[in-house]
Amino acid sequence: MAEFALIQRYFAGLSAPGKDVLLGVGDDCALLQPPPGRQLAMTMDTLIAGRHFLVDADPLSLGHKSLAVNLSDLAAMGAEPAWALLSLSLPKIDSGWLQDFVQGFKTLAERFGVRLVGGDTCQGGLSISVQLTGFLEADHAMLRSNARPGDLVYVTGALGDAALALRLLRAGEDPGALRQRLEMPQPRVTEGRALAVAGVRCCIDLSDGLVGDLGHVCQRSQCAARIQVDRLPLSPAMASHVRATGDLTLALAGGDDYELCFTLPAAARQRVEKLPFPCTCIGEILPGQGVALVREDGGSLPLPSAWEHFST
Amino acid sequence: MAEFALIQRYFAGLSAPGKDVLLGVGDDCALLQPPPGRQLAMTMDTLIAGRHFLVDADPLSLGHKSLAVNLSDLAAMGAEPAWALLSLSLPKIDSGWLQDFVQGFKTLAERFGVRLVGGDTCQGGLSISVQLTGFLEADHAMLRSNARPGDLVYVTGALGDAALALRLLRAGEDPGALRQRLEMPQPRVTEGRALAVAGVRCCIDLSDGLVGDLGHVCQRSQCAARIQVDRLPLSPAMASHVRATGDLTLALAGGDDYELCFTLPAAARQRVEKLPFPCTCIGEILPGQGVALVREDGGSLPLPSAWEHFST
Repeated sequence: MAEFALIQRYFAGLSAPGKDVLLGVGDDCALLQPPPGRQLAMTMDTLIAGRHFLVDADPLSLGHKSLAVNLSDLAAMGAEPAWALLSLSLPKIDSGWLQDFVQGFKTLAERFGVRLVGGDTCQGGLSISVQLTGFLEADHAMLRSNARPGDLVYVTGALGDAALALRLLRAGEDPGALRQRLEMPQPRVTEGRALAVAGVRCCIDLSDGLVGDLGHVCQRSQCAARIQVDRLPLSPAMASHVRATGDLTLALAGGDDYELCFTLPAAARQRVEKLPFPCTCIGEILPGQGVALVREDGGSLPLPSAWEHFST
Repeated sequence: MAEFALIQRYFAGLSAPGKDVLLGVGDDCALLQPPPGRQLAMTMDTLIAGRHFLVDADPLSLGHKSLAVNLSDLAAMGAEPAWALLSLSLPKIDSGWLQDFVQGFKTLAERFGVRLVGGDTCQGGLSISVQLTGFLEADHAMLRSNARPGDLVYVTGALGDAALALRLLRAGEDPGALRQRLEMPQPRVTEGRALAVAGVRCCIDLSDGLVGDLGHVCQRSQCAARIQVDRLPLSPAMASHVRATGDLTLALAGGDDYELCFTLPAAARQRVEKLPFPCTCIGEILPGQGVALVREDGGSLPLPSAWEHFST
């Protein structure tokens, strides 16, 4: 499609050769020089219209989000973002739409030092595949399989805002500033790097919701987790929703937050709690299996039965 | 999608950790150890139903072809295939279809040592994105920009078979054995590696057709090419088509052959011509710009005005 030339023009600068990019977009392959001694973290995610984003989502948000969900995967490993390939399927060429899409992608890419090194465009239903590679020091990776009984469980930021925004939108209400949490999620790249450097070795990003994603950690680490639901970090909007409804489901099981959930030995907690971003201890890892929810008064809560998520 | 578990089961073995795959499918990212001192070649291509393949294409061919087109890009750089990520969008789960798709992908992957290290599946229109990384010795890359006046122009294999098969299929005729050339293209990976090791430094794979793809080489190298059309390597089926019609368009401009077109200084021709696979010298690189077609008797041919290709 000749239109990739158009996209390349919009992306100019983002795909310039440099220290580790020997050859960017324009040949059969990109040619890259990985830094000596580093490992590579690789991820690829596809977003499909109607499935992973609202069909009328604005293109700037979409450009942002298609990169953000991949950056979030790198963040969860503790990797430093490096190279992206983008495959874009579009029903038609709309240069205004494309320009906005590129703007959203590019702004986020530049913020985290991502270079666009390849990809393609074609005509088809609207969908976006991004493949992303990051660098990581040896033995610094934060794996789902590294939780151990006795570890504390933490999350960054606040939980459930994206799901609350989605619920409001679906009810025809204006989510106000919360809409940004859904459409322009901020991947916790800086936080993930800092956690890996501080010695954290178990982490996952919250794309499907806390209970489900922490469940993946438990499964891969062969252990259980107990969450103190009264400690869940909530934004003012979410706290007000919980006060009004008594319902924590959105914070426990709402997807698309892209915060990080990580575990660490209790002895290491000071190293993390002095980091310059919000981290909240919400529970602990135990022998056994599965995720349990408890209140401060000792009572337990049933697990939420339904997710609030784009994919459901 | 829980179905990725199904796919992972089918792919078992192809995604096992190994020397350079520290962690494969199943965490937020794959974790990889690039070999010291090597460069990386990266490519990503998306195939969309109805656009890049016939909607009723059999899934085994499709699994093969989705990897083959990416392997062909690595071949054109001279890289050794290593890691793949696969993003699969499916209208519905059909386990028979999936099993065949995986079989086609896996058989080709195993032949060339490709490990599957990540990806995702989702529900949507049928489309397949594959991202592929290969290894390359420093200064061995074969670039479109390296053709020089005085170079000879070569192609591997034979030209136009895929386009002839497509034309027969569209006319409701049975292309017989030619159908394999269209639906199960053989990427010239071994050939590309051998050419790079033999000192070839300019190559492109023929996905859009000889005239168009050699035109890319001319453009990036700021030179012209002259093709001796009587020297084009043709299969018996294609030769018989040319005898019957007098028309070379399919060999000159038919896409989807995935042969390699490369150039080299005349002094180096012996190094290439003793390689154990068919390479045919079809012309030369000249100062100037654009591709010209000439006959042995000195007469010239007009450039084909239309491509025969899935994307048209």
